[in-house]
Amino acid sequence: MTKPFAIGIDIGGTNTKIGLVDKKGNILNQTVMHTTGYDTVELYVDALKSEIEKLAADRGINEITGVGVGVPNGNYYTGEVADAPNLPWRGKIPFAQIMRERLGYKVQLTNDANAAALGEMEYGAAKGMKDFIMITLGTGVGSGFVANGQLIYGYTGFAGELGHAVIERDGRLCNCGSRGCMERYCSATGIVITANKFLEERKEDSVLRQHPGKLTAKDIQQAAEAGDKLAIEIFEYTGMILGETLAIAVSITSPQAIVFFGGLAKAGDLLFKPVRMHMEKNLLHVFKNKVELLHSTLPDADAAILGASALAW
Amino acid sequence: MTKPFAIGIDIGGTNTKIGLVDKKGNILNQTVMHTTGYDTVELYVDALKSEIEKLAADRGINEITGVGVGVPNGNYYTGEVADAPNLPWRGKIPFAQIMRERLGYKVQLTNDANAAALGEMEYGAAKGMKDFIMITLGTGVGSGFVANGQLIYGYTGFAGELGHAVIERDGRLCNCGSRGCMERYCSATGIVITANKFLEERKEDSVLRQHPGKLTAKDIQQAAEAGDKLAIEIFEYTGMILGETLAIAVSITSPQAIVFFGGLAKAGDLLFKPVRMHMEKNLLHVFKNKVELLHSTLPDADAAILGASALAW
Repeated sequence: MTKPFAIGIDIGGTNTKIGLVDKKGNILNQTVMHTTGYDTVELYVDALKSEIEKLAADRGINEITGVGVGVPNGNYYTGEVADAPNLPWRGKIPFAQIMRERLGYKVQLTNDANAAALGEMEYGAAKGMKDFIMITLGTGVGSGFVANGQLIYGYTGFAGELGHAVIERDGRLCNCGSRGCMERYCSATGIVITANKFLEERKEDSVLRQHPGKLTAKDIQQAAEAGDKLAIEIFEYTGMILGETLAIAVSITSPQAIVFFGGLAKAGDLLFKPVRMHMEKNLLHVFKNKVELLHSTLPDADAAILGASALAW
Repeated sequence: MTKPFAIGIDIGGTNTKIGLVDKKGNILNQTVMHTTGYDTVELYVDALKSEIEKLAADRGINEITGVGVGVPNGNYYTGEVADAPNLPWRGKIPFAQIMRERLGYKVQLTNDANAAALGEMEYGAAKGMKDFIMITLGTGVGSGFVANGQLIYGYTGFAGELGHAVIERDGRLCNCGSRGCMERYCSATGIVITANKFLEERKEDSVLRQHPGKLTAKDIQQAAEAGDKLAIEIFEYTGMILGETLAIAVSITSPQAIVFFGGLAKAGDLLFKPVRMHMEKNLLHVFKNKVELLHSTLPDADAAILGASALAW
């Protein structure tokens, strides 16, 4: 076939998803491999290469336009992955360069939240928008900012780290070493910390107290959905912090929409009612009721691959 | 003369500055008129017109490429001035349209801080930069964000309102109606509020206690420069809030520099030592020691005119 095809790769701490994508955003073939278990990054890239070749051969394709990669701590300008705490490789890895050398394709790389933003802009909820914010609510909080139709990479190439905006002075200790980063409050990890704090500090009864084993964000969501008052309050607190932080972001870039993706975003109104309330409360009048809160319209499994592939064109 | 010339207009609450500018940023002729005292905005624009014609005639120029206007609450997209609390005109004024009709020139308009950012990018401290933040520290706090070499206007056209980012929950009441806007802490107005609070809550002796009449930001600066401990602490507090807020902004747009302009920015190290310390403390490692704090290199009187004129080309 002679139509243009690209490869989208989403590298996570555990798994690497690889997809063969056409220009319209159809994933023609995809696979998953482990991110860990390779002695060197070169061996990992060699495994990637053989998976890519299999995907293309399977569909009778022998020309690939390019490879786009979404990876935590990925730098668009340098193609490096720098000190990613959840990846097996330490220090600064010239990832795009290693891939180019071993794969023989054009390779573009960015962090996972930026890739998600590109995917939403090209194929998803932000299609046609020139100004929006992408927020991924997972283990951490990722963000990608689009202004004037372009991703903001900034001077360093690392722009869009709203998850590490410090929003509580002397607040909770973050993995990054700072205190009070918003992701310690608004991620799946953050809501569990809040729940454990609330359970310790409050006297109220709650089904969360009877919870067997370690509490998860999902447990808190289920309890809140079943009407547990403390669990609902935990979501209100989380939504307040997220809404307040988003109001600051809106005052800077004035987006048309904020697009949410990730596990915690599935909590729906439990989270987004307080988010909207506290965001609107804190907005300057010119921004009030001007920002849509949207959910990703890309299927969970495909969003990261599509986003990464959007880099390759 | 046939070289291209533009008009830069800076509209303030009291005065309107008008300059005739060439492409290199030389102000060939300039004047000042009152902003107030006209019964209608049309009469004000007619007065503007006659001043512009005088400026051009004085230099034997009969062709103007265009007019750029920096005005509080000015909207780049619509050319409107919306509910500017410090200007004599109420509601939404189709300012650029009225000017176009009565002047007969091409007119572009933006808010004053965005105009300042354009001026610094074209002629000043941010020359050649593609990613920077402009901060004006005056009666309020204005800001303009440049990413990928372009001003961020956002979906509404009002992007860059960091002064109204709410950084203290249930904080000081702002003119905008919200509580805790950063400009209630970090502007010339804000530092005076802080000083009065400190004087009330603390017991320490301070020359500020003996101050005749109403305290100004300048008084606090002079006291701090003379070694007054409380005045120094007031600057440290102000610098802390400003530094913390800037760290959030940096985590979003990752600028090469932050350029400061305005009266309070003249306090120098008194303000910028704590600003830098608290900003760096709150930055993610990838941003640490990557952001220059710069002062505007444009002469005070010229900056606003040059910024506005940069819009016209």
